Formats: sequence, C-alpha cells, structure tokens
Amino acid sequence: MNKIEANPIGFVQRQDPNEDINDRELTSRIVIGKEYAEGLRGIEEWSHLYIIFWMHKVVNEKKTLVCPGNEHEMPNVGIFATRAPIRPNPVGLTLVELLEREENVLLVKGLDALDGTPVLDIKPYPYWVKGRWIVVTDYRAPAYFKRINE
Amino acid sequence: MNKIEANPIGFVQRQDPNEDINDRELTSRIVIGKEYAEGLRGIEEWSHLYIIFWMHKVVNEKKTLVCPGNEHEMPNVGIFATRAPIRPNPVGLTLVELLEREENVLLVKGLDALDGTPVLDIKPYPYWVKGRWIVVTDYRAPAYFKRINE
Repeated sequence: MNKIEANPIGFVQRQDPNEDINDRELTSRIVIGKEYAEGLRGIEEWSHLYIIFWMHKVVNEKKTLVCPGNEHEMPNVGIFATRAPIRPNPVGLTLVELLEREENVLLVKGLDALDGTPVLDIKPYPYWVKGRWIVVTDYRAPAYFKRINE
Repeated sequence: MNKIEANPIGFVQRQDPNEDINDRELTSRIVIGKEYAEGLRGIEEWSHLYIIFWMHKVVNEKKTLVCPGNEHEMPNVGIFATRAPIRPNPVGLTLVELLEREENVLLVKGLDALDGTPVLDIKPYPYWVKGRWIVVTDYRAPAYFKRINE
C-alpha cells in the first residue's frame, strides 16, 4: 500500500502558545480554510465534536512500547493501548465542546492540541448507527490505570 | 502547509467482502503490520477501542454540503456536521468492542470499514484527562436527526 496523503482542513490557533493544553477548561480556536468553511454549516446544532488532528510537533521515534504514566515500576505497554503522542501516525483525537461558531472559526473547549496544529477532520458526537446513538458507559480499562492516576 | 503523509499500520480483513458493514453486530479482523505488532501489547485490557481508518474507496468529490439522510426535503448541512464518508480527508472513526487479540490480529465488533481498509491508528476508549474519564452523556444533537431516523 502506498502512502496516504491528507490535507489540513484548518489549523488550531492559540492566543498564547504557552497555554496548558491539558487544561480541560481551556478554549481553542480552530480556523478552517476558506475553501472548506461551507462544510461547517449547521455544526452549531451539535454540542460536542470529535476533532481529528495531526500532532505535527511529535518526533517520530518509531517506538512501539511505552511506560504508562512514565512510572518506571510499571511494565511497558504497546503504543496502541495508550494515548501517548508518539505513535506510527501522530493522529490526535479529542472530544471537545463546541462553544461558538463564527463563519470559518470554531471556538471549542477541551482541545489538547498545540498552536498551529493541522486539523484533518471534524465529526459530530456521538457516533450513531441506524438512528441509534452509541454512547458506551460500560467499559473496562486496565487495572494499572487507576494506580498511575491516584 | 505541505501535505501530510501517513502510513497504514494495518488493514481490515473480511471473510466476505459483501458483509453489511453497518450491522453493529458484525465482527471484523484488523491485521496489524508485523513491524507494529508489539504496539498491541496489553490492548486486551481495554474493552473498547477507537479505530481511525482511511476510507480508501471514497471518491473525492470536493463536496462541502450534503443532504442529511438523503431526504430531499431536508436542508443541506455542512459535511463536518455529518458522518457522510465524502469529506476532504476520508478519515473514518469508529468506536468498537474488542473481542480478542491474537498476536498481530484484533477481532472487533462494530467496525463499519470495508475489506482492505487501511488503518491509521488505534486508541483506547474512553478518553481521559489527568486521570479523569471523559464520557459525555449530556449532549445536544440537531432536531432533524430524530426526524430522519424515525
């Protein structure tokens, strides 16, 4: 299979490049390219969106294993079992709250993307199949997850 | 900004290419490339995963507006307010249930991707920030959504 080529539909624009992107209350502007702006029509009827972006500042280290939580007593786990940014394709996926849309600009809350991050796609939340919403509240996570977050 | 280049980490493999991919009970195999297989270590501790894929069969029509539900009495909405496969970057995002992992192969339930679809990334569900799970159950969707699905 050949390489896959994607084009940014827009970029994350921050007022201050030093903002803490892990602050879930942080607001971010996503500026969509003029040629795609019409694709936002009606998006303000959704309260939450998935933002799919390309973590352009991540250096490709070709790692497949990482230490969860950077605590060295933990066993290494595979990159696909984590949200670590270093991954074969540095695709970011974050569920955000849409606060406002003004023409080609979205103001969202909870986006953990750096200033200048290229955005690949935006999808409404939640997922649905045949008219039925899919919101999974019954899930299982690794036991170590609780330990590293205590 | 230049084009973004991604490499498939693996491919969707179906027993029968004519399976109904919108059947949420359908199981799918995701075959991860040998060089990335170690990245799956520990993934079986998660019950649900996000699969991010490239809808390689979608023809780029450069559409920005679509008719939701293909019902022509509806007003057109922007592509980013829908899950229509025709979009500037044909990125697919589906939340699936992980049934089994055997070495570099995942058996998942609920993946709406065609046979041969390149997979870009796999992430655990749900999203979290600073040790807190983010599962949004209080959301707002467009009023037309109910009408087209009745």
